[in-house]
Amino acid sequence: MEKPADSQYQIHDLLRRRWSPRAFDDRPIEPEKLRSLFEAARWAPSSNNGQPWGFLVAVKENKSEYDRLLNCLVEGNQQWASRAPVLLLSVAMLQFEDGSVNRHALHDTGMATENLVIQATALGLVAHLMAGFRIDQARADCQIPEGYEPVAMIAIGYPGDPAQLSDRLRAREVQPRVRKSVTEFVYSARWGQPSSLLP
Amino acid sequence: MEKPADSQYQIHDLLRRRWSPRAFDDRPIEPEKLRSLFEAARWAPSSNNGQPWGFLVAVKENKSEYDRLLNCLVEGNQQWASRAPVLLLSVAMLQFEDGSVNRHALHDTGMATENLVIQATALGLVAHLMAGFRIDQARADCQIPEGYEPVAMIAIGYPGDPAQLSDRLRAREVQPRVRKSVTEFVYSARWGQPSSLLP
Repeated sequence: MEKPADSQYQIHDLLRRRWSPRAFDDRPIEPEKLRSLFEAARWAPSSNNGQPWGFLVAVKENKSEYDRLLNCLVEGNQQWASRAPVLLLSVAMLQFEDGSVNRHALHDTGMATENLVIQATALGLVAHLMAGFRIDQARADCQIPEGYEPVAMIAIGYPGDPAQLSDRLRAREVQPRVRKSVTEFVYSARWGQPSSLLP
Repeated sequence: MEKPADSQYQIHDLLRRRWSPRAFDDRPIEPEKLRSLFEAARWAPSSNNGQPWGFLVAVKENKSEYDRLLNCLVEGNQQWASRAPVLLLSVAMLQFEDGSVNRHALHDTGMATENLVIQATALGLVAHLMAGFRIDQARADCQIPEGYEPVAMIAIGYPGDPAQLSDRLRAREVQPRVRKSVTEFVYSARWGQPSSLLP
């Protein structure tokens, strides 16, 4: 199943096709493809080239590692994410190497993660980010050190058949994708003032 | 000038070619291309589909708007960014619509911004994010309301000739791009523990 963005203005096909499904095939991801995902994250831009992102990765073949990540998810997410062959936890390093605060730590981790997600799309994979996980449990079970922040969990795999989902989740899987219109979040050089660049 | 990533593992050409130059051509950006940039940001994923990102945009043809953004930049950035035909300020909405804190506001603004930057690359444009700007001045001059956070400024345009830059900036423009190795930021399901997926 694909669910391309119903875009108002033309965008690149990779961006149009990226979406966050809940149905995954149980086929594993080839290790070289996983390496490409992290390589894509690696080349994201960052404030002062601080590269404040980190990723924990677990594949289903390694049951103890996989379960450690899976168990951090809230139950509603475990229900469908447990079919994904790969789980990630993104982590942000809150200070620069010199100890000063990096106010872009989460922002830049988001940029690296979006690179990873777009690379997944390019490889025929799907990736679904989740805010719904137990942060303190992740911190403890994954031994995240002080100064590092667990940010998001990500389920990755090949797309699966929505028929595998519960009725409730299948309904969400096929419902239309919605977004604010561009004029609701783009303004002139004053917040709230319409830009003449947008009709 | 191009400066593709010297990637260790294969990544998509758009991600490989994205970089942050300081040399811009003064040719304006076609309005329909600008609209595609914002459309790309629009379709980024976000926690609870909160879409916490916003963008202020100024084109050089509108001098008062452009100068308002340009003057927020620290002088070192003004020096080269003043050649770019378009300046943006990204802004994060710190709460969800229901008033609860969105801990992913900056993260998701980063994801939307990376979509925008990749779309720029696809259109033959270059985009350079800057942390170096006066946040309080941006907040005041651009009337950013309480609950919203000025995040990053972005110079966008067609690539220019590095000969236009000062000796010091030209040297930075051609120096090799550096990144941590993947094994420095990807671990197993325990922080700091090497993943067997990476050779």
